Amino acid sequence: MRFVIEAGRLKGVLRQTRLTEPDRQENSAEHSWHLAVMALVLAGHAPPGTDLGRVIAMVLVHDLVEIDAGDLFLYADEAQQARQEAAELAAADRIFALLPTEQATRFRALWDEFEERSTQEARFARALDRLQPMLANVRAGGGTWAEHGITAGQVLAKVALIEDGSATLGGYARDLVEQAVRAGLIGLAPAGGEPG
Amino acid sequence: MRFVIEAGRLKGVLRQTRLTEPDRQENSAEHSWHLAVMALVLAGHAPPGTDLGRVIAMVLVHDLVEIDAGDLFLYADEAQQARQEAAELAAADRIFALLPTEQATRFRALWDEFEERSTQEARFARALDRLQPMLANVRAGGGTWAEHGITAGQVLAKVALIEDGSATLGGYARDLVEQAVRAGLIGLAPAGGEPG
Repeated sequence: MRFVIEAGRLKGVLRQTRLTEPDRQENSAEHSWHLAVMALVLAGHAPPGTDLGRVIAMVLVHDLVEIDAGDLFLYADEAQQARQEAAELAAADRIFALLPTEQATRFRALWDEFEERSTQEARFARALDRLQPMLANVRAGGGTWAEHGITAGQVLAKVALIEDGSATLGGYARDLVEQAVRAGLIGLAPAGGEPG
Repeated sequence: MRFVIEAGRLKGVLRQTRLTEPDRQENSAEHSWHLAVMALVLAGHAPPGTDLGRVIAMVLVHDLVEIDAGDLFLYADEAQQARQEAAELAAADRIFALLPTEQATRFRALWDEFEERSTQEARFARALDRLQPMLANVRAGGGTWAEHGITAGQVLAKVALIEDGSATLGGYARDLVEQAVRAGLIGLAPAGGEPG
């Protein structure tokens, strides 16, 4: 129960992603719920033999470390990402240790699996985690892409990880980026860059 | 994908439950996530043979109808509950129909199962759904109990449904109410009632 109560604090961790309805930043708890619903509904796009139960368990716990470490923007630089990784490891040590030993080991292993993308379940879970904010950005008319001047090339580089988890969802994401470019939601070159 | 995007609107449905950290009302999406985490962690308190995957799927989708119907306070009167039930049925018809036919049927059946408490999976899921706001109320120093002048007797009447889903969680909830009474977080008689 200590773990259950501590987990509730994830509702207070705000992400970069901007929701349109309601119009506010998304938090990591509702983001995790949305991924779990996506896993249920999009299960048919996972490679054959994928253990859906493990995918869902992974997306449910994957962001708990943000209770201590906070959320980092996907396009942060390498130094920021290295600091974030260290903070998340320390958070995993603290938070999963609130569980009874057997569960602590099991949930920590799930989190490691997600981070390391070491199984097809983890790769599918990571694909969902990357696709969901893209849907939100399209819906928000550009969202964090527009806000931070992210280019289509930068987004497409991130789509590789979706393709790695699910060929069809990867194709879908690639189409989504192309549509976003055509709709003017995302630029081909960095904002403020020299034309030509 | 239409269903996935529509589901995201559940983040905008506010519940009565008051969170303490952050200090604001809880929404139904993050509530559903919390239930799914509880299902993972408290699985050992489900009756033997419980299909945990179905419990988790049920708690993930159980509140989607609130996108149209909104959330109703647990202690609402019978007329309000009848109106809510009709609104939720109409919402289920609309929202699950956004899915491809086979999935629409499957998810609607899961929602019906939860509502009807017709299986041990549904009874365990409902137990979690009832226990979670109790934890929040204790943490909030009374929460909605204090706000609405709910008595220990009214809460204990609701604990029966937790016991029906899990003997040990029911016992835990009963102890929680007793502790809340001793701590003065919840009254034995209605607030404003005649003493003696």
